[in-house]
Amino acid sequence: MGEGRTAACLAVGSELMGDRRLDSNSLTVTRTLARYAIPVLEKRVVGDSVELVAAAIRELVARHDLVVITGGLGPTADDVTRDAVALAVGRPIAVDAEVEGWIRERYAELGRRMPEICSTMARVVEGSRPLRNRRGSAPGLLYEARGRLIAAFPGVPWEMEEMLERDLVAEVADWSGGAVRLSRTLLLGGVVESDTEDRIRHLYPRFGRENVTILASYGVLRLVLTADGDEAAARRRLQTMETAFREILGADVAGVDVDGLATVVLAALRRRGETLAAAESCTGGLLSARLTDVAGASEAYVGGVVTYSNRLKEELLGVPRDVLLAHGAVSAEVARAMAAGARQYLQADWAVGVTGIAGPGGGTADKPVGLVHWAVAGPGVLEDHRRVFMGDRGIVREWSANAALDTLRRLLNEDRR
Amino acid sequence: MGEGRTAACLAVGSELMGDRRLDSNSLTVTRTLARYAIPVLEKRVVGDSVELVAAAIRELVARHDLVVITGGLGPTADDVTRDAVALAVGRPIAVDAEVEGWIRERYAELGRRMPEICSTMARVVEGSRPLRNRRGSAPGLLYEARGRLIAAFPGVPWEMEEMLERDLVAEVADWSGGAVRLSRTLLLGGVVESDTEDRIRHLYPRFGRENVTILASYGVLRLVLTADGDEAAARRRLQTMETAFREILGADVAGVDVDGLATVVLAALRRRGETLAAAESCTGGLLSARLTDVAGASEAYVGGVVTYSNRLKEELLGVPRDVLLAHGAVSAEVARAMAAGARQYLQADWAVGVTGIAGPGGGTADKPVGLVHWAVAGPGVLEDHRRVFMGDRGIVREWSANAALDTLRRLLNEDRR
Repeated sequence: MGEGRTAACLAVGSELMGDRRLDSNSLTVTRTLARYAIPVLEKRVVGDSVELVAAAIRELVARHDLVVITGGLGPTADDVTRDAVALAVGRPIAVDAEVEGWIRERYAELGRRMPEICSTMARVVEGSRPLRNRRGSAPGLLYEARGRLIAAFPGVPWEMEEMLERDLVAEVADWSGGAVRLSRTLLLGGVVESDTEDRIRHLYPRFGRENVTILASYGVLRLVLTADGDEAAARRRLQTMETAFREILGADVAGVDVDGLATVVLAALRRRGETLAAAESCTGGLLSARLTDVAGASEAYVGGVVTYSNRLKEELLGVPRDVLLAHGAVSAEVARAMAAGARQYLQADWAVGVTGIAGPGGGTADKPVGLVHWAVAGPGVLEDHRRVFMGDRGIVREWSANAALDTLRRLLNEDRR
Repeated sequence: MGEGRTAACLAVGSELMGDRRLDSNSLTVTRTLARYAIPVLEKRVVGDSVELVAAAIRELVARHDLVVITGGLGPTADDVTRDAVALAVGRPIAVDAEVEGWIRERYAELGRRMPEICSTMARVVEGSRPLRNRRGSAPGLLYEARGRLIAAFPGVPWEMEEMLERDLVAEVADWSGGAVRLSRTLLLGGVVESDTEDRIRHLYPRFGRENVTILASYGVLRLVLTADGDEAAARRRLQTMETAFREILGADVAGVDVDGLATVVLAALRRRGETLAAAESCTGGLLSARLTDVAGASEAYVGGVVTYSNRLKEELLGVPRDVLLAHGAVSAEVARAMAAGARQYLQADWAVGVTGIAGPGGGTADKPVGLVHWAVAGPGVLEDHRRVFMGDRGIVREWSANAALDTLRRLLNEDRR
């Protein structure tokens, strides 16, 4: 693939070395290169130090055919990428009149005079090709040496994206000789990673271990299948892979190339012309937020209640006081009464009820932190489940919302109409 | 600082080389090391290749005093970190009976037998110290050579965080020779970044531009102040900085070192001995989820309703049908009726109502996508606001939830009791 060519990403900027910001530009670069079947095998982030950036470039260009640098091309003293490229390849750097003209023009378009400091962005590494920036002032650069390519783009995503599509794609489009890499993602609900891996492991040799990736997220798995080759062959291959994995995974597969369980559930409801309501205690609105995050949710989702207090469980959902007293708010009986009550009082075809102890406090020997009961009520069905989830408050809530959505999804699927 | 010692992060996992996931563990590592004034100068991400991981370790340990590796310690064939460390340092690796015992015990706690495959996690690099994992099964490792340290932790954040605090901190706490880097974060609500920067810019020379960072997130700003030195001096410096910035920012400052507006609002309610309810339309449970994400929320937050349909707005909140017909569901009048209704029907001292058009559909010339009305009802007060937020569905929802929380915060503060 890509005739075996590989790439690396290097993000430059001290703001990326703190404890808050991540280098998300590499995701865009990876996505762009994937279309031409060029895998990104290494990613790096370094601060604004000429020496560290130059060392990173030297190491990466020794191992990969393409090094894509983002950031560090602005006009201030801490923008070091140009000098680092010059240092890494051992070539001088000097102001180029044409490039300075681009920058002046850009400022003129904005009705401003170019600040003197900006001429530093017009410095060009000898032997490199400067790249015009049509959405900002900082030019990029391309440097080719012995068939290997160093490309640098501004760190501003809006500027970088346009330059990637124009300048980088022009360079790499023919590397793959017409080959593409396609992928397809199976979404699985109600499963855990290790069990799933045990079930599908025997298919790895058939399709290649590197073409199957499992991504796990609190009770939801994404099985990413990839296939290389010319487009028609890659499509056929993906179809074969999907069929083989579906044969084993059956009803655990919630959907293909969909973004989450909420989307799957809402689509099933729309197909059936039915509606949904939610009654949440420990998830506290998370389940509702997940559903309403999907555009068009209002066609099937009528609404929900967050009943933290017992009083609201009684008043808004009609959970009988004696059930609350006899079994406690975190119990199968209350989850069932919440689901049934939401279905009745909010007038929906289906309803979910979730009650549990998300922590960190509130656990007992009998009912530990992480204990969650959830129930789904629908036409002729009322089903409940229980699990003890491990993790902090946020994690218990994520697992709970996913578990409830998955139970609903299975019931909507079983009961096909 | 840190006697000049530096660190690097290395995240291992092919799932991090795709176009979806970023290495967020490095943020936790950076935050932990920052307390001991050890800067992270390089970050890397590589796929599951023994050779690439070993090469990265070798390069990083040559440049930095500490290399913190996350991920690749699990039991499957694509978990390569242990072997990569062995290769990088040129030492053999073999199963250690004691470590295998830890893993068996961990499975026993969960009432399961250790799968055979898991004994691979008990392999220990000669000369390294295995680190017990109390929240999962994969052990970590510490390897020290010529005063430089290689540390490896599982990629699961919940497991890694505990091991960082226990095992890594024990190693590095004395590296800084008593110097620390302290920071303090002022949380601002209801402001935009550019205006705020204009107001505070003149203080930069006094405290050093590099010691003031603004982070913006949908109507919430975090102003991060930092100071270096011995602990007492750094604390005094931070106090001076806080006072100076507060003088300018006044009531826009929602809190100091708090994680968000929800936490501030819940603390104010608890202080006042009052309760809160929420009535959401366009935010669809997000506001409720944000509030209940805070541990102990149930002391002040009684619950909420998500009323997507007009029918539920009438039935659960008592919004008069003629108000809905006269002004439409997205109107100041309905936001006010939702807040007042939630306060009355959910029996809380305070209530928030939010209604708007999050998009992508549903906008008109009169009421464009992004239009949001919110209202707060409290003892003797009913106040509403209107804004048109720019951005996609998710962004409009984030802005709306933050705006509603900030209005409530200001009312709770003004009306001190």
